[in-house]
Amino acid sequence: MPKEIEFFFDFSSPYGYLAAELINNLGNLHGREVIWKPYLMGALFKKYNLTPLVNDPLKGDYAMRDIQRTADYHSIPFQFPDPCPVSSVKACRVYYSIVDQSPDLARSFALRVMRNYFQSNIDLSKATNVFEAAKDEGLDVKTLASSIEHDCIKERLRHEVDAAINRGVFGSPIFIIDNEMFWGTDRLEQLNKWVETGPW
Amino acid sequence: MPKEIEFFFDFSSPYGYLAAELINNLGNLHGREVIWKPYLMGALFKKYNLTPLVNDPLKGDYAMRDIQRTADYHSIPFQFPDPCPVSSVKACRVYYSIVDQSPDLARSFALRVMRNYFQSNIDLSKATNVFEAAKDEGLDVKTLASSIEHDCIKERLRHEVDAAINRGVFGSPIFIIDNEMFWGTDRLEQLNKWVETGPW
Repeated sequence: MPKEIEFFFDFSSPYGYLAAELINNLGNLHGREVIWKPYLMGALFKKYNLTPLVNDPLKGDYAMRDIQRTADYHSIPFQFPDPCPVSSVKACRVYYSIVDQSPDLARSFALRVMRNYFQSNIDLSKATNVFEAAKDEGLDVKTLASSIEHDCIKERLRHEVDAAINRGVFGSPIFIIDNEMFWGTDRLEQLNKWVETGPW
Repeated sequence: MPKEIEFFFDFSSPYGYLAAELINNLGNLHGREVIWKPYLMGALFKKYNLTPLVNDPLKGDYAMRDIQRTADYHSIPFQFPDPCPVSSVKACRVYYSIVDQSPDLARSFALRVMRNYFQSNIDLSKATNVFEAAKDEGLDVKTLASSIEHDCIKERLRHEVDAAINRGVFGSPIFIIDNEMFWGTDRLEQLNKWVETGPW
């Protein structure tokens, strides 16, 4: 069976969003399943005392320009949300509430939340906005609102974040296949070759 | 007259080296002159209290793997030199000693110094190695050895470094065309499109 591609991202990461728009095509092209693994870059920033790229005094302005230019380059509708980044805890909890039952639905939900945020400035840190996206995917919001407050979902998210960080995940997007890590939307070309031909 | 592409890099930057192997093809393809502008990332690291990427505790291991993989992807002979990075002051001074008289020769010298370092582990921080590369380009080493100690060359290099940093250059490689900045070997694809079609 062809090996899967793991896709780590933060819901509020602009480059993560661009990758989310591009990765499924790559997976479909080669018949590889893509496992979406949202995690919390905030936990990473806290642990290592880091600053989000767009707030970096030296690289922030360039990064904002590069993100818009890269979106346009790939013809992905994009406008910089404000504020950005934001907490993606709520979106992550909803994602992990549904992913085991239906990975496809969880992916559709994830993409919708990110499109709302990166195309229409709908703040994904707010529970109401996250639930609205879930509702638009046909999910039962009342059940979700209750399940994301359960300890088991909070624990599941903590576990996913710790597992990502323990595997050396440090950015968004990061892809792992065959224990090989690729960091950045700009590594999709190499990832594509890897999937096509194996290691070079 | 078509606008030139400015190419900023540090002689001891692995990604800068990969770009040096790739950028002239792009320039030739489109009839654009590429102006090579070596500078000292050490000055930047000092000014902003930064760490070279390969020494970053979180990203260093990945970066080393990514550099080798990217070199192999582009079929560029590469082996990680040790130590890396090193001071590129001597190489820069030689470069700026010759560039006004002969940009082509200066470029050939620059590429030779980097190939020696990144293919054969010949430490480019050492004056003897830099002069050896200059000699292999047909340059008169005695004249060079004297001219790189002149105040005017030291001042010229300081000026080039300050000018780069003041223009917002913060990495290696960085390309500027039409006041548009592209950071990274992985932005050559976008740079290529920019040169071909203009802004998108």
